[in-house]
Amino acid sequence: MTADLYLRKGADRRLRGGHLWVYSNEIDSAVNSLGQYQAGDSVRVRATDGKLLGSAYMEPQALICARLYASTDTPFDSALLESRIRSALAIRQAAFPQPYYRLVYGDSDGLPGVVIDRFGDYAVVQLNNSGIERYSELVVAALVEVLKPAGVLLRGDSRSRREKGLADDIEVVSGSVPEQVSLEENGVHFMAPVHGGQKTGWFYDHRMARARLAPWVAGKSVLDVYSYIGGWGIQAGAFGASEVCCLDSSGPALEGVLSNAALNGLVDKVSVRQGSAPETMKQMIDEGLAYDVVILDPPAFIQRRKDIKKGITAYRRINELGLRLLRPGGLLVAGSCSMHLAQADLIGAMQQAAVRAGCQLRVVEQGAQGPDHPIHPAIPETEYLKAVFAVKSD
Amino acid sequence: MTADLYLRKGADRRLRGGHLWVYSNEIDSAVNSLGQYQAGDSVRVRATDGKLLGSAYMEPQALICARLYASTDTPFDSALLESRIRSALAIRQAAFPQPYYRLVYGDSDGLPGVVIDRFGDYAVVQLNNSGIERYSELVVAALVEVLKPAGVLLRGDSRSRREKGLADDIEVVSGSVPEQVSLEENGVHFMAPVHGGQKTGWFYDHRMARARLAPWVAGKSVLDVYSYIGGWGIQAGAFGASEVCCLDSSGPALEGVLSNAALNGLVDKVSVRQGSAPETMKQMIDEGLAYDVVILDPPAFIQRRKDIKKGITAYRRINELGLRLLRPGGLLVAGSCSMHLAQADLIGAMQQAAVRAGCQLRVVEQGAQGPDHPIHPAIPETEYLKAVFAVKSD
Repeated sequence: MTADLYLRKGADRRLRGGHLWVYSNEIDSAVNSLGQYQAGDSVRVRATDGKLLGSAYMEPQALICARLYASTDTPFDSALLESRIRSALAIRQAAFPQPYYRLVYGDSDGLPGVVIDRFGDYAVVQLNNSGIERYSELVVAALVEVLKPAGVLLRGDSRSRREKGLADDIEVVSGSVPEQVSLEENGVHFMAPVHGGQKTGWFYDHRMARARLAPWVAGKSVLDVYSYIGGWGIQAGAFGASEVCCLDSSGPALEGVLSNAALNGLVDKVSVRQGSAPETMKQMIDEGLAYDVVILDPPAFIQRRKDIKKGITAYRRINELGLRLLRPGGLLVAGSCSMHLAQADLIGAMQQAAVRAGCQLRVVEQGAQGPDHPIHPAIPETEYLKAVFAVKSD
Repeated sequence: MTADLYLRKGADRRLRGGHLWVYSNEIDSAVNSLGQYQAGDSVRVRATDGKLLGSAYMEPQALICARLYASTDTPFDSALLESRIRSALAIRQAAFPQPYYRLVYGDSDGLPGVVIDRFGDYAVVQLNNSGIERYSELVVAALVEVLKPAGVLLRGDSRSRREKGLADDIEVVSGSVPEQVSLEENGVHFMAPVHGGQKTGWFYDHRMARARLAPWVAGKSVLDVYSYIGGWGIQAGAFGASEVCCLDSSGPALEGVLSNAALNGLVDKVSVRQGSAPETMKQMIDEGLAYDVVILDPPAFIQRRKDIKKGITAYRRINELGLRLLRPGGLLVAGSCSMHLAQADLIGAMQQAAVRAGCQLRVVEQGAQGPDHPIHPAIPETEYLKAVFAVKSD
């Protein structure tokens, strides 16, 4: 039986505007207490006056204690899951000619906590809180019903999971899933290590920005910093770069770069360099190296709101190093996946870096999340990705 | 002889960060007075301690009384103009295979107040303040030297010019320029009325976003509101839309739509409807019309900072009308060229419209200024363009 969760007076405002999160200090503790719920319990969320705001599942131990999945009184069941997955699939199929994309992106697709990446016949699922984990089997069953995949991998090793003290759990939950799966992005081929790689094994989020590399890299030398398995660098090579150097601290990632280079006939163009990005870039500056295009796609330097100032400094530093490795007239591509970093602040950090490096910048392209990472217009937290392309001049 | 313009204490900070504008209340009136300058006079801008901040030209009657064009002590002469135009041209040639683009975009290209649009062998110049107008002949001569165009049209009819009480002055200043010039954008052909049309006759700024229409419009019915001569609508037709209706209040603009439709063999698909956008959209709702894609590219609803709140309401209203004309599963494209409207506020207005229209939105693409409208990373005012693509669901 579904319970009613009453909010405090005024706490309904954000939800009426379309947001989907209930914070633990927003519930009316005179009427209901969080202690009465188990993770995943389904509730009807109501304003003080009893008005239904929607249906949510509970995560009572968390700061966000309830996550709305529907605006009506609806159970969290197979019918809902299948309908949501079909709706998400329709958008991806409209946007992309081939079956390689993020199929479900959490709140934006009406499935809070659920991330599903599709690699052709295979799917990789992440469930990012303890509430949604209770529905693990139901989610996988709905996915199998809609997509009929050859295999589904459940990656229970997200950061949010670790922060909550949950053990890693990476498991094939349907069919079979090879260690490496193939994908195509912007016409370029990759193998992604879905069992052991970062996150789901691949980052589809920068796809639209990577496509925009094409006019800028033909005949140019390219440095791809924080390359992982070469998402940017190998595509730059395939788009006609004369040489590509991929820099990463991970040996297995750089092995991935080399095998992805081979997959696209780019072995002669692509080299790798292992080391921490800032230190290695400093060495490269000392060695007198310079490139026509420098791509910086670091991990999130800002994990929490309180780290914004320190994080902006980190972005400024890495961009300054990038600019010092860039020839005049060259292109800097500065990525950020920090949700807490505003686009304007990334551009500001780039400008500070330019002042320190004694050069000028013109921002010529701005990459954002594509159709497989839709932004929920009422939830600014669903927008996190930036890729700013800037041309350097004296 | 170049004079020195001393700033008040602390007023150098923004310029040291790379900004290029000096406000009239920032000059040290104990040392120099604005009354001693004529529009266009060249000055060395100095901090209180005498440190050179750069070279600027004066517009002593304006709120922005000086505009920096170089960080060194440099005359505003042919050499500077040619160098700046060549640098701007190099970026456009790298980014675009064909000679149709904004060639010079003011501050971002180191030429404050100068806008030049290129249409193959023809160029259209706008000079947007009285300081730069003094250099009109020099600007045109430098352009002719670098580009060797068949003709240059000087359009002295900008809003900023009118606000300053300057008379309209549209004049062929080099060679000859036909009434209509041809251009190609994303593989689609257009004729643009450079003498009599809006601004320079064409809006290159939405080019990158229009290119992104392709996957969304094939086989779909499209409504293009505020169509002007069909920049969005005709491209949607060329990308495979089943039918396109262009709505605009201007008869000559709609004649342009029809001739551009003919130019691309799209006469059977394209219809026009004349009227004010909000009223006509209300009529169309009453008539029970519905489309698969609705594109809204209004003029700037926010001209001044004080109009932001009223402007956001105007964007919300037009988006609500657009959503009411959109079928479930359809795509809303919401443009804004208001510099004062933040991307987040446009998305917020769309969400408010969705709540009122009783639907959900997923933002699937975000268009921004391209390489021919570069953003100066120290001057947020150089960024003004937004195009948010959102899919509607129940």
